[in-house]
Amino acid sequence: MRVAPDTVPPFAARRAAIAAALAAQDVDALVVSDLINVRYLSGFTGSNAAVLIWRDHPAGDRIATDGRYTEQVAEQSPDLAVVGARDTVGALVAEAGRSGRSVRVGFEADAVTVAVFGELCTAVESTAVTLVPLRGTVQTLREVKDAGETALVEAACRIGDDALAALIERGAIAPGRTEREVARELEWEMYARGAAAIAFETIVATGANSAIPHHRPTTAVLADGDFVKIDFGAVVAGYHSDMTRTLVLGESAAWQREIYEIVRQAQAAGCAALVPGAALAEVDAAAREVIVAAGYGEQYVHGLGHGVGLQIHEAPGIGSAARGTLRDGAIVTVEPGIYLPGRGGVRIEDTLVVSDAGPRSLTSAPRALRIL
Amino acid sequence: MRVAPDTVPPFAARRAAIAAALAAQDVDALVVSDLINVRYLSGFTGSNAAVLIWRDHPAGDRIATDGRYTEQVAEQSPDLAVVGARDTVGALVAEAGRSGRSVRVGFEADAVTVAVFGELCTAVESTAVTLVPLRGTVQTLREVKDAGETALVEAACRIGDDALAALIERGAIAPGRTEREVARELEWEMYARGAAAIAFETIVATGANSAIPHHRPTTAVLADGDFVKIDFGAVVAGYHSDMTRTLVLGESAAWQREIYEIVRQAQAAGCAALVPGAALAEVDAAAREVIVAAGYGEQYVHGLGHGVGLQIHEAPGIGSAARGTLRDGAIVTVEPGIYLPGRGGVRIEDTLVVSDAGPRSLTSAPRALRIL
Repeated sequence: MRVAPDTVPPFAARRAAIAAALAAQDVDALVVSDLINVRYLSGFTGSNAAVLIWRDHPAGDRIATDGRYTEQVAEQSPDLAVVGARDTVGALVAEAGRSGRSVRVGFEADAVTVAVFGELCTAVESTAVTLVPLRGTVQTLREVKDAGETALVEAACRIGDDALAALIERGAIAPGRTEREVARELEWEMYARGAAAIAFETIVATGANSAIPHHRPTTAVLADGDFVKIDFGAVVAGYHSDMTRTLVLGESAAWQREIYEIVRQAQAAGCAALVPGAALAEVDAAAREVIVAAGYGEQYVHGLGHGVGLQIHEAPGIGSAARGTLRDGAIVTVEPGIYLPGRGGVRIEDTLVVSDAGPRSLTSAPRALRIL
Repeated sequence: MRVAPDTVPPFAARRAAIAAALAAQDVDALVVSDLINVRYLSGFTGSNAAVLIWRDHPAGDRIATDGRYTEQVAEQSPDLAVVGARDTVGALVAEAGRSGRSVRVGFEADAVTVAVFGELCTAVESTAVTLVPLRGTVQTLREVKDAGETALVEAACRIGDDALAALIERGAIAPGRTEREVARELEWEMYARGAAAIAFETIVATGANSAIPHHRPTTAVLADGDFVKIDFGAVVAGYHSDMTRTLVLGESAAWQREIYEIVRQAQAAGCAALVPGAALAEVDAAAREVIVAAGYGEQYVHGLGHGVGLQIHEAPGIGSAARGTLRDGAIVTVEPGIYLPGRGGVRIEDTLVVSDAGPRSLTSAPRALRIL
């Protein structure tokens, strides 16, 4: 079932799901101040906001933002009453305590800084509010995507696929060009296909630079025999795509074909391990074992993947130390790599939906070694 | 004195300035984890890092980052020994406590979340480390720009000026175009002139949308008689520019000329008030009084300006509730506005250097009402 991206997102239903989760947390209300979580629960995209959600009293739910956003919040979050304030968290904690009844108010321990917490503690000192730090309440809900969200990630992935194909087709990835030129053109192709933004700083890494996992494009010039590693994505209505492909220019060397093939097999094994209920650490292991067995375990310096949605990196993280399991409907990347400092590196990455029917890749550029 | 942007930035000197400031804070060391502050003190631009700075022991200074950035950190921060860790703050707090001597370790209360702080407290429980929350230590140092930083902001401002001029010159801001088209073209012009990135989401707001202070570009079509408010900037080597201009298409109405002229006078008054040592609240008042006197105080819903540098918004904030004073060498925006909901709004913004020799505007597009 595919839902058109312009379907009204179910913000009220998401808030209801959070309200239902609050009983188990032993709080009366939650103040959400992570801006991505605010967007997820309200649709509001401004740079200063928080949302108050009651466990048993949805009519008391509020969104706080400041005067710059009066019109925007009315348009984006028409079903939430607005509290106007610069200090949005402080204002909503005060709002939660307004009745004078004793209330336990949860806050996001991963979004509230020690400094803001200190101010909140001072503010509630002689009130009936008890502050309760909570972690991951909204992030956990966000892990499983609904059909509308999946359609948006898929649209972003298609933009990335098409943009890369267009660049390859017209010979724009070639000796003599710089990393920055290739990165910029790839971004322009994504914009031209409707990307609202670039998902993250595009990585184009040529030759020895491809051994740097998160290289920033420089004026380094692509040359014959180089690995060219390209890691990029688009944003559509807030939702991200993420894909990496590693190409070779001119002729490939034996060592390049060797490590490419190992990474390709590891990536396929990682994708195959995306089964609802699988332990995250075991998904990581499925791919890592292939690389370790080939003797390159030390040259694979990061985790296997991560959730993708309103953030480019979100729950669940898939790594050797990850706890928890994969959930049906999660969208995650699978991106093993081998990096040989001073020589070059390979990473292959796709964005996939986890499903009982088997994993479905939303990115679809060819995974076999391409020689341009 | 102008320093070329490629001069080696004085990272060690900046760390020495922080070390000198730590005595007054009564700590032996500081763990810096705000990523912008990390970049300012080390040159490192990766997405996961922290820096340890000792009050009396620069040889013990460290940078922590994870395996993805091994090569990048060696290149960008060659003068700092590296601690490899995912949990960078935890690793550096442990490093600070390694001697077993009793040490007071400051951390950035505005960068460390309640969740991370909880983990740190657990980790140091049976050690000789005492954690001390500090605020603004590095931000205060960053307020005053050196010649190299000023040159970079100036380069970014020039890119913005030139990009807008090019768009106007070729008639790209005209009835029939959409806000998004204009925003995208403006961004492309900045990239074409060497911008490394866009400073923030470009605002192009036409007609009634111009009354929304922080409007996001839509497919709204520019029309004759519209105000078109454009707020945008470029990034050069990490440093931002920020400028707003409001134009009119076709013919201007009397109400448009009226509020434009009030904002123009308020902006000029604000710029004139940029004197080293001036109280920030009085700088705000200098511009605000003009708008209040004209009867539009309620339609000016934000502060006057903010510092600009490695962040688009940084210290000092210039608003009616701001404490503190302007410092010689600070770079700030001056951006009053009047917003009439449903009709339209005006904002005029420049980025200026505060100096004993008088304020110097780094942005230079004409401030008189332009009718296209």
